[in-house]
Amino acid sequence: MHEKFHQPVDAAKVPRFAGHATFMRLPAVSSPKGLDIALAGIPWDGGTTNRAGARHGPREVRNHSSLMRSTHHVFKTEPFRVANIADVGDLAVNPIDLLDALRLIEAGAAEIVDAGAIPLCVGGDHLTTLPVLRAVAGEKQVGLIQFDAHSDTNDTYFGNNPYTHGTPFRRAIEEKLLDPRRIVQIGIRGSIYAPDEHDWAVAQGIRIIYMEEFVGRGVESVMEEARQIVGQAPTYVTFDIDAIDPSMAPGTGTPEIGGFTTREAQQLIRLLDGLNLVGADVVEVSPPFDLADMTSIAGATIMFELMCILARQVERTRGAAIG
Amino acid sequence: MHEKFHQPVDAAKVPRFAGHATFMRLPAVSSPKGLDIALAGIPWDGGTTNRAGARHGPREVRNHSSLMRSTHHVFKTEPFRVANIADVGDLAVNPIDLLDALRLIEAGAAEIVDAGAIPLCVGGDHLTTLPVLRAVAGEKQVGLIQFDAHSDTNDTYFGNNPYTHGTPFRRAIEEKLLDPRRIVQIGIRGSIYAPDEHDWAVAQGIRIIYMEEFVGRGVESVMEEARQIVGQAPTYVTFDIDAIDPSMAPGTGTPEIGGFTTREAQQLIRLLDGLNLVGADVVEVSPPFDLADMTSIAGATIMFELMCILARQVERTRGAAIG
Amino acid sequence: MHEKFHQPVDAAKVPRFAGHATFMRLPAVSSPKGLDIALAGIPWDGGTTNRAGARHGPREVRNHSSLMRSTHHVFKTEPFRVANIADVGDLAVNPIDLLDALRLIEAGAAEIVDAGAIPLCVGGDHLTTLPVLRAVAGEKQVGLIQFDAHSDTNDTYFGNNPYTHGTPFRRAIEEKLLDPRRIVQIGIRGSIYAPDEHDWAVAQGIRIIYMEEFVGRGVESVMEEARQIVGQAPTYVTFDIDAIDPSMAPGTGTPEIGGFTTREAQQLIRLLDGLNLVGADVVEVSPPFDLADMTSIAGATIMFELMCILARQVERTRGAAIG
Amino acid sequence: MHEKFHQPVDAAKVPRFAGHATFMRLPAVSSPKGLDIALAGIPWDGGTTNRAGARHGPREVRNHSSLMRSTHHVFKTEPFRVANIADVGDLAVNPIDLLDALRLIEAGAAEIVDAGAIPLCVGGDHLTTLPVLRAVAGEKQVGLIQFDAHSDTNDTYFGNNPYTHGTPFRRAIEEKLLDPRRIVQIGIRGSIYAPDEHDWAVAQGIRIIYMEEFVGRGVESVMEEARQIVGQAPTYVTFDIDAIDPSMAPGTGTPEIGGFTTREAQQLIRLLDGLNLVGADVVEVSPPFDLADMTSIAGATIMFELMCILARQVERTRGAAIG
Amino acid sequence: MHEKFHQPVDAAKVPRFAGHATFMRLPAVSSPKGLDIALAGIPWDGGTTNRAGARHGPREVRNHSSLMRSTHHVFKTEPFRVANIADVGDLAVNPIDLLDALRLIEAGAAEIVDAGAIPLCVGGDHLTTLPVLRAVAGEKQVGLIQFDAHSDTNDTYFGNNPYTHGTPFRRAIEEKLLDPRRIVQIGIRGSIYAPDEHDWAVAQGIRIIYMEEFVGRGVESVMEEARQIVGQAPTYVTFDIDAIDPSMAPGTGTPEIGGFTTREAQQLIRLLDGLNLVGADVVEVSPPFDLADMTSIAGATIMFELMCILARQVERTRGAAIG
Amino acid sequence: MHEKFHQPVDAAKVPRFAGHATFMRLPAVSSPKGLDIALAGIPWDGGTTNRAGARHGPREVRNHSSLMRSTHHVFKTEPFRVANIADVGDLAVNPIDLLDALRLIEAGAAEIVDAGAIPLCVGGDHLTTLPVLRAVAGEKQVGLIQFDAHSDTNDTYFGNNPYTHGTPFRRAIEEKLLDPRRIVQIGIRGSIYAPDEHDWAVAQGIRIIYMEEFVGRGVESVMEEARQIVGQAPTYVTFDIDAIDPSMAPGTGTPEIGGFTTREAQQLIRLLDGLNLVGADVVEVSPPFDLADMTSIAGATIMFELMCILARQVERTRGAAIG
Repeated sequence: MHEKFHQPVDAAKVPRFAGHATFMRLPAVSSPKGLDIALAGIPWDGGTTNRAGARHGPREVRNHSSLMRSTHHVFKTEPFRVANIADVGDLAVNPIDLLDALRLIEAGAAEIVDAGAIPLCVGGDHLTTLPVLRAVAGEKQVGLIQFDAHSDTNDTYFGNNPYTHGTPFRRAIEEKLLDPRRIVQIGIRGSIYAPDEHDWAVAQGIRIIYMEEFVGRGVESVMEEARQIVGQAPTYVTFDIDAIDPSMAPGTGTPEIGGFTTREAQQLIRLLDGLNLVGADVVEVSPPFDLADMTSIAGATIMFELMCILARQVERTRGAAIG
Repeated sequence: MHEKFHQPVDAAKVPRFAGHATFMRLPAVSSPKGLDIALAGIPWDGGTTNRAGARHGPREVRNHSSLMRSTHHVFKTEPFRVANIADVGDLAVNPIDLLDALRLIEAGAAEIVDAGAIPLCVGGDHLTTLPVLRAVAGEKQVGLIQFDAHSDTNDTYFGNNPYTHGTPFRRAIEEKLLDPRRIVQIGIRGSIYAPDEHDWAVAQGIRIIYMEEFVGRGVESVMEEARQIVGQAPTYVTFDIDAIDPSMAPGTGTPEIGGFTTREAQQLIRLLDGLNLVGADVVEVSPPFDLADMTSIAGATIMFELMCILARQVERTRGAAIG
Repeated sequence: MHEKFHQPVDAAKVPRFAGHATFMRLPAVSSPKGLDIALAGIPWDGGTTNRAGARHGPREVRNHSSLMRSTHHVFKTEPFRVANIADVGDLAVNPIDLLDALRLIEAGAAEIVDAGAIPLCVGGDHLTTLPVLRAVAGEKQVGLIQFDAHSDTNDTYFGNNPYTHGTPFRRAIEEKLLDPRRIVQIGIRGSIYAPDEHDWAVAQGIRIIYMEEFVGRGVESVMEEARQIVGQAPTYVTFDIDAIDPSMAPGTGTPEIGGFTTREAQQLIRLLDGLNLVGADVVEVSPPFDLADMTSIAGATIMFELMCILARQVERTRGAAIG
Repeated sequence: MHEKFHQPVDAAKVPRFAGHATFMRLPAVSSPKGLDIALAGIPWDGGTTNRAGARHGPREVRNHSSLMRSTHHVFKTEPFRVANIADVGDLAVNPIDLLDALRLIEAGAAEIVDAGAIPLCVGGDHLTTLPVLRAVAGEKQVGLIQFDAHSDTNDTYFGNNPYTHGTPFRRAIEEKLLDPRRIVQIGIRGSIYAPDEHDWAVAQGIRIIYMEEFVGRGVESVMEEARQIVGQAPTYVTFDIDAIDPSMAPGTGTPEIGGFTTREAQQLIRLLDGLNLVGADVVEVSPPFDLADMTSIAGATIMFELMCILARQVERTRGAAIG
Repeated sequence: MHEKFHQPVDAAKVPRFAGHATFMRLPAVSSPKGLDIALAGIPWDGGTTNRAGARHGPREVRNHSSLMRSTHHVFKTEPFRVANIADVGDLAVNPIDLLDALRLIEAGAAEIVDAGAIPLCVGGDHLTTLPVLRAVAGEKQVGLIQFDAHSDTNDTYFGNNPYTHGTPFRRAIEEKLLDPRRIVQIGIRGSIYAPDEHDWAVAQGIRIIYMEEFVGRGVESVMEEARQIVGQAPTYVTFDIDAIDPSMAPGTGTPEIGGFTTREAQQLIRLLDGLNLVGADVVEVSPPFDLADMTSIAGATIMFELMCILARQVERTRGAAIG
Repeated sequence: MHEKFHQPVDAAKVPRFAGHATFMRLPAVSSPKGLDIALAGIPWDGGTTNRAGARHGPREVRNHSSLMRSTHHVFKTEPFRVANIADVGDLAVNPIDLLDALRLIEAGAAEIVDAGAIPLCVGGDHLTTLPVLRAVAGEKQVGLIQFDAHSDTNDTYFGNNPYTHGTPFRRAIEEKLLDPRRIVQIGIRGSIYAPDEHDWAVAQGIRIIYMEEFVGRGVESVMEEARQIVGQAPTYVTFDIDAIDPSMAPGTGTPEIGGFTTREAQQLIRLLDGLNLVGADVVEVSPPFDLADMTSIAGATIMFELMCILARQVERTRGAAIG
């Protein structure tokens, strides 16, 4: 079947520095139709309260995703042979009108979902996950596995503004997009605004696994719990690049020391294998604050790992459908 | 009289790298009352259509203004001895609500104007000049000398949004803040959206002196014309750091090669001496895109040059009042 | 006629940081057929004797060409309305086999020429100009206007190796691709290997205008002579980014202080208007040595200026053909 | 009681990039009187034998301490509600006279101690700890917990010079400021001058826990020993940022690979809770060698962690006094 | 005996930033004769398929090796007192002719081997190890311990080119330089070209210890196996700097996240003690992609650790010979 | 005669990135005996009142002087064929003892002078020129041509300290090393401490040519006057890299915008030809503040230009002696 799937440029013929910079060196397509997985950028950071720049994330993650090869070395999965994947470009945004931007992003994500493809997006700041969840969550609420330094469940900023990159998951719960009892946040750390900052989230049923608990338990124990929390119901995975330590991902808006190593991040993602994912994203890659493209490279690799998980799911699902 | 004026830290006693980073190492005051010139930051870039970051401008211009000494070497003016000057801090802003930000900035600038001080502001993107003009321009329209790579008189962006850093002077003319026949724009250059992009501005009476004309005529000829255009009526000076060549001021959002050298910029500003200025600003310094603080240092020096011009005006005015 | 021409993305709808990074935000096409001007990358630096990196030039010039708008502000030319222009991608290269690379590049350039399009290429090191000249120069020898810090007419390096980025124009003369009496090199400067280093070139008839002569005469005088030298016969223009001062274009392999300002470079290129150009390139942009993308931005702007010159030629030619 | 305590700027009203850069966005005060904890900079690096730059440390740690929020997420401590804390500015220094600098720093630190406040200082190079110890250690010798890559107990450099950043703790022992049997050094590593380089220190009673031992034992075991060594007698804590791995804190003068992760550093500091601390510092943050402000951010976070420990001590002490 | 050995500059007399930049501040000698260990650079990266720059590695590793002191703090070994070591300069190379470069490097390495010295080389890309192996492996095949992110046992690239930095160990096995049953590769990770990419290597007998296995087993277990694999027969050690995580060694051509920490790398190398080493190298340090010289410093430290292992071997051997 | 002169490495055989980093790739010699011109580093910045780092200048100027070729393209002079030139290494310094450093530097310079060689030094901060002048000026006072942004004739700093990089020429006049009527300072600019800051210097007879005067008159007029001032009596040339604009030489401690272009700097130096020079230096290159080695490259080129002037003087002198 894969003869018809999109294939990346052959690096043994075209050097990695050559050719247009698309995600994973895949073809750029104008429509998600026919795709199993749609790789999309969301170049918008209008919800950023401190250091902006994630609007440039998709451009540079694309640029450095040229380093990715075509096979996952642990799973031995060849994503482009088991799923039809392409770069659908950037979703439309509005850099100076927050509400219009949320509408545009939702519309773009909905087009992917309506085409039957799973969206794998690169932000943009974390507020971009909200309109994608609006598109992904239909009548059912979805679960969420969130790798992040911050809970992002605050209420308002700067005079009752409800939409910032610190509030998306509070809004998503209020909008019934997410089932709070099926949300797990992993890697939360750093100074907070008040001792009760996370009380609302916990009261909703969100399971917060702070970095300190993670360090004590290890990757496997934490992910076993996470998998049990979300179960086999539809689940979205969001990876805020600031979950990773700022020495490994300096190009982000709200760095917090003491983060995941990239090695741990890879282990965490690989243990998502077998879940029922309806979408995923990598957000908060902010190239203006990056060093030697280190964060873009890490972001591209995290995206590759997530893409392999999604491709394996597509393969399983297709096998089950045929079987 | 100057015994009572605020004085900067003495660099022969306290090294330049020591102490708090205020503008020109002046005291930070909580009110503009009693000041002749108020140095203020406007940390906001919500009007930026491409590369944001000017929100960080005031912080870093303050940081590197520690390099400034207390006397202008050409004029031999000692600004802190002829005028009472201090750092009034940053005007209030809202990073995620454009209209609220414009209101807050206008209120902050109005407080300075109402106190009888001349505002010398550091942006922020060029849209921050609009609310300052609202505060400065009372019943009379003011003139404008604008050093810039771009005319910033476009109409709308991204679906009829009227407020971006590409539109402030169109809005200011529509709002009757500026007298278009007393506007001169110097250093305009770079590719444009359409052949008629500047037609509206020219039709209003704005005098655009493109970089190519400047190169042919030189600093003195151009400034003589500029001085005649604005005359002795109240005039505002706005200096977009992208007027300077990106090799000398890389930290800005919309770089255009072929700009002013800093040497030319200093010459241009010194020829403002003797005009009737009601305010001035330096905008679009964007530290995330800067190199070795080069743009912040250039911005701080431009600010110093403007401050000396304003201080000389204060000295003249006071002398005239006494005389 | 221009309704059928390729158009760039509309920046008033899609922000500059969004979308795929193609040259000038034009469509990426798979064939040069039907184009008047073909924008192509040549990502190869195997001729570099010191600091490699120009292989990454096309990728980053594309990236930062997003800053270009659609109209030349001096000529008021709209290149995309008078000529059909697109990004034809990168020519095939071989990063580890010099001779194979030269063959591949020549083949790629020949495809453009055979399609009737004018190639406007982005290198790559200066040796990439040689195979393009092989494609461009048919039975007739072409003239050359070369903006460069170095003559690049040396004979051999490292044990009689004839092909390096210091030798392309010697080879091109030997191969009868160039008419040496119609070659002018402008901006040559910097220490040399021996007092007689340029004697061969001069003996062939090449006119070398050193930077010192340029400084004394100015842009217009120099370009008047250059235009007389090449006349109306077919001429190629090559712009080595190291012609520009390293403070404005640090990202290059062989920096020489005392170079052209970008302002001068723009003036020089604009005075190419009216010649009979068969191709042009911008070479030696080396992103690993760049700062804040300054060189890529300068390179993209130089490319834009050259593209406008070529578009005006297309317009004239078409007008003449119709007339 | 905390109604009277100094409070930082409210980040939900004033964005983190706005306002003056003071430590933790606290008020800048002119006197330590009334404070429980005095945050002070010591911008001096005259004891640096190789790469200078730590003189700029206080400026940039202040700058990036704006990222800190007001509550410790593990302890749930709100330092600004249990202790009166402010930024007392930089202690006076002399950049070109070493002995005068040591006198000035001691005087500045003594002013803090005499006011009854605990000094929490940001260097400066490690020699700045010596004059602070002179101020802190009265008639009693104090203990020391030192996180560092280097023992800093060498004797002399460059012709019998006794004062460099490699000698402060030898001098402090000789001056009877420190009780060597209550000194523990953690994280020591890297090549040394001679096999017996640490023999003097060990002979005095200093407990050196090399990085290799730390790796084998882990944070808790090591800190349990450290706490036993210093006991409940007055103890000073000094954190040389080069204790942290250079990938996480590159901005320092004497980098040694194989250092603590920031995660380990946070764990180490949190286990200081409950000791009897008379002062603390973070030294050797050298912004000229920093990358993307990574070291300044790490330094500010380490300072925040130490401040929380000190604030908890103040709270305990005050409770005990009242109780 | 060591009175006659070369000694580095005394850092207590000459600061580390002073003097010529030789490896370890040792004398530069013109011949390897009389040396036990010869430190050599191989400034060549002509086998690099993506991001070149390792040609600049020796220059910058030399520069930053000035930070090394003269004694290993764990072994207490003083390498310069137990072995005669010097900087023999860079081996001759040819930057634009791959086959000539391989010949030249082999000749240079052979000169060292023929003089009876052990070569400790700094590349250069990983293809430089091939000609050194040609010089080192005489009639006997040698074993190999390879620390690396990549197996480098691919067959061909870009049209059947057999020599790239992705193929050296396939060629070395084919040339009978290496005994494949005595090869162990540690730290391999990252996406691969095809599921069977490593099948050839494994079929030859190479033991590949992927990063994931390493994480599960730990340093000691892995090195115990590695030591058993190579035994006491002659063995070469090659350390590709990309084995280390890109956050700690960003200056390399093919970064792969999830790498060794420098701490692990030091542990790994120290467990080489006692083997029978015939040479060693550190390759792929690429300064143009480095940050704050972090990779050069790491490379210099890895080189120092390897040098100490070799010096201890020299000491043992000499002792045995005398004994 | 030149058969016996030291020659640089042949760049057509050994690539520029290979080999040890000596000045101009010349041999490193242990004694100045037999040299006509001695190239020496002075790695010391203990007189720096703000941003230190010039101690690293010699190391990096050496590193990047590898870019220099062997012939001056305007003069056609081959310096290494008309004069015996070598790298004598760094003069001894003391990084933590100012007075000892001044003594050591003077001794090192005296050794060069006593050997009959002309010293061409690379600092170090500008205070390093003082001890060199002590060595150069015997019983006669020498003249001085100083290219600089600052007059460096202040009296004291930080409590009557007489020795900083802002005071060397006041001290040199007081010590009768310089004849103040034969001093010309060119390029002075930037804010000053007080209106009378330069009065002492002018009263001594120093001719200060401010940047503004230079801009009005041009290179030739200014240098004609400078040549007349110093005449044919012994003269020293000091080039503070901050004379050049910070966009072209950002790596310096006290940047002042509006400086010389490198093109102007080269013109200025070439007009020194024919004077009677007893020494020269390039100071204040500060690598920690540099960008892409731009300042080191500029410094190396300025050094090359000065070396050619000195070599031409040696050639003239020798010719006269023979003649």
